[in-house]
Amino acid sequence: MSQANLDTSSAFLDACAAAIGAQHVLTGTHDAAPYLADWRRRYRGAARAVLCPADTREVAALVKLAHAHRVALVPQGGNTGLAGGATPDASGQQAVLSLRRLNRVREIDPHNNTITVEAGVILAEVQARADEAGRLFPLSLAAEGSCTIGGNLSTNAGGTGVLRYGNTRELCLGLEVVTPEGEIWDGLRGLRKDNTGYDLRDLYIGAEGTLGVITAAVMKLHPLPAARVTALAALGSAHAALDFLALAQRYAGPLLTGFELMSDFCLQLVGRHFPQLRYPFQSRHAQVVLLELSDNESEAHARALFERLMEAALEHGVVEDAVVAESLAQSLAFWNLREHIPLAQAQEGLNVKHDIGVPISRIGQFIEETDADIARVVPGARMVTFGHLGDGNLHYNVQAPEGGDPKRFLADNEKTLNRIVYDNVARHRGTISAEHGLGQLKLDEAAHYKSAVELKLMRALKAALDPLNLMNPGKVVR
Amino acid sequence: MSQANLDTSSAFLDACAAAIGAQHVLTGTHDAAPYLADWRRRYRGAARAVLCPADTREVAALVKLAHAHRVALVPQGGNTGLAGGATPDASGQQAVLSLRRLNRVREIDPHNNTITVEAGVILAEVQARADEAGRLFPLSLAAEGSCTIGGNLSTNAGGTGVLRYGNTRELCLGLEVVTPEGEIWDGLRGLRKDNTGYDLRDLYIGAEGTLGVITAAVMKLHPLPAARVTALAALGSAHAALDFLALAQRYAGPLLTGFELMSDFCLQLVGRHFPQLRYPFQSRHAQVVLLELSDNESEAHARALFERLMEAALEHGVVEDAVVAESLAQSLAFWNLREHIPLAQAQEGLNVKHDIGVPISRIGQFIEETDADIARVVPGARMVTFGHLGDGNLHYNVQAPEGGDPKRFLADNEKTLNRIVYDNVARHRGTISAEHGLGQLKLDEAAHYKSAVELKLMRALKAALDPLNLMNPGKVVR
Repeated sequence: MSQANLDTSSAFLDACAAAIGAQHVLTGTHDAAPYLADWRRRYRGAARAVLCPADTREVAALVKLAHAHRVALVPQGGNTGLAGGATPDASGQQAVLSLRRLNRVREIDPHNNTITVEAGVILAEVQARADEAGRLFPLSLAAEGSCTIGGNLSTNAGGTGVLRYGNTRELCLGLEVVTPEGEIWDGLRGLRKDNTGYDLRDLYIGAEGTLGVITAAVMKLHPLPAARVTALAALGSAHAALDFLALAQRYAGPLLTGFELMSDFCLQLVGRHFPQLRYPFQSRHAQVVLLELSDNESEAHARALFERLMEAALEHGVVEDAVVAESLAQSLAFWNLREHIPLAQAQEGLNVKHDIGVPISRIGQFIEETDADIARVVPGARMVTFGHLGDGNLHYNVQAPEGGDPKRFLADNEKTLNRIVYDNVARHRGTISAEHGLGQLKLDEAAHYKSAVELKLMRALKAALDPLNLMNPGKVVR
Repeated sequence: MSQANLDTSSAFLDACAAAIGAQHVLTGTHDAAPYLADWRRRYRGAARAVLCPADTREVAALVKLAHAHRVALVPQGGNTGLAGGATPDASGQQAVLSLRRLNRVREIDPHNNTITVEAGVILAEVQARADEAGRLFPLSLAAEGSCTIGGNLSTNAGGTGVLRYGNTRELCLGLEVVTPEGEIWDGLRGLRKDNTGYDLRDLYIGAEGTLGVITAAVMKLHPLPAARVTALAALGSAHAALDFLALAQRYAGPLLTGFELMSDFCLQLVGRHFPQLRYPFQSRHAQVVLLELSDNESEAHARALFERLMEAALEHGVVEDAVVAESLAQSLAFWNLREHIPLAQAQEGLNVKHDIGVPISRIGQFIEETDADIARVVPGARMVTFGHLGDGNLHYNVQAPEGGDPKRFLADNEKTLNRIVYDNVARHRGTISAEHGLGQLKLDEAAHYKSAVELKLMRALKAALDPLNLMNPGKVVR
């Protein structure tokens, strides 16, 4: 990071300092640096300054100034995104707008099952505050200790609870947004039903800050389940996992809150790098599924339900083996296996990552065909395939052949592998970004696969709401 | 309906006839009449013609022609709307675009839990086709035998399953839309997760045909529950119903699929006009709640759960009496009570209707305050208060004092009562249209209560997507 990354000579910055206090306008290289690169260090940008307003009015004041001075803004939450959506470009002309200081929980309304939070509240704090009120906020993902709810909303984050509770989009009832002109839209409604015009809320959700700045939100809460119990099932193929999912949904209905697929190679990697985590079956199986039940009655009821399900699945030959957690500790141990897959693959070295989704019914076929296509082009490539099968969302990652140099593998094969994977995704009418968004990482890929009509519609919306192109330009749509 | 309602002299109509066949361009008064008034006969319009295309390509061809000839189109499904959204204006210059012939179920994918349907498919048929495939399509409302899924989507219809399954919006994964320029956007994706740009889908849902024409949709299916069981609980007040709802959600979690409030006066009206429907309790109670459980295990399990819930509620003094249905017949009888309220109030004579929503926690207070405000202005006015309490959505209707003339009552008091009700709704941050949409009925009321910023945003979207204002002009936003 050189000094040249920060252009501090600006009437704009003086006005910003007057609006929010000079100490909240970061221009020093040292102070600003953490905001100028994404956490995976894939993108490094520059900026005139990092602006840290304290509340919605200050955000509005800054956006008005940016509008007047024609300065482009890059909204940023916890800076945990995986697509570079919150990193400024290299020009040094943009300003980062950090929402971290908007960190108040404004209201909890247990009877309405809602919590009203500012954009900078950390996801784990939303969960904790809901729990204190005897409610569940079900959004849960790896970065929950540092990501913010504003970032979750702007990227429509997914995570492990989508099967039952939906994405961040489905958990949001209302928003407060600062428009690109610096006006405040108060859409903080805590209503389950409201049919009075265009759905502005869902337009801002997932827009990655390109249409306005989300400053607060009313989020849905759910009843706290009495117990959560997990189980593992061993299967012969991903195809079998589809039949098993249908069976599990028939038995458990909405109590089924998790259905995660892990290929055998994923668990081999976990075993290699985290040998303390025990492989749960006597023999190896092609696929393992982690199931979670959230039961409103009791742990005993959940376990009994699991036992009935597994008996039926074994009887029908859908699963090859199964184990139901007998304690909370064992439930956590099962989740631990799943959560160590990303860590284990990182230990193994860089790989080519894909966050794809296809219709659930196509998953078996997609894996089979794409595995074969990749094997033809890069013999020995090792597939790290895991993810939220119940949502049709796979982390379909490709690791260098055993003993190969990961960096070299990436440099030689990333483009080719992306094309193979995304072409197959498109053929199955899937998505190239199921839960990570587009940011700058997948902007061009999205433009490649979307229809001309869809791109035209997206551009029309962007031009209508942000005609000066000052809100996070170069992200999502060009 | 006079001949003057139809202006048939037009090059536009000749071109339409060439595109879809003359027999599908209805210009005769007799043929067109059913499309020119809403079913409640509150609005009567006129039109150049009623256009009845057979498929998406024909819709696109007609919209292109309308665009070239600058003819405004009024999309229409089953014509069961309650806000006049599908009725043309009186000018005779608009054309009705009926989607009824787009009535194919294109695909059912049980493993993906999706059904792909054209806009003109009747809601009851979607339910039936899902059921045949062993799945549940949970959208359910009074007009289900004649309303279309396209109309449900365009008005984001609610109904009785929202508590668990959401509005039509939450049941839709993808859309096919003809844009105002006559291009086809193929957004028919059957994905639970897709974060690749702006949420076009949710922009068209609830837009009442003002941004484009929905021609097909991918809708979510759910596992078929093993049993549905209902129960009735008698309560002393609407406030108590809130505590009871929280208790029921704690006991039943997502198995609770219905929570409907019925004030005593509603049930008195049912008793008066449908004496064969028995009042279920020994003594009268201020409020009765109908609960429904959808159980994935068995009827016996659902009943046992209800028994435990009711015991706890009686013990805590939350409910005054309770009865759990002992058979499917009794479950249906309980629903019958609820469903006869709208019929009973119609028998009693015209009333002033409101489809309002407030945060669930505010419902008791809203009813108390608004009842009092109304009693001050119209002494003796009788409140027909019922609805989807679990969603915060009430049908808060005001009937003339006993023995009063309903027509006179309506003429004298409608405006005053609307103002009282909607002002109180606004004070509680609620909505003046929870599930019926705006159409032409509530267009001006919505403009009155919405902020300048929100109206500006809505107008910007309308201008961006329909710059010539040819899609259902005069509805939703002006």
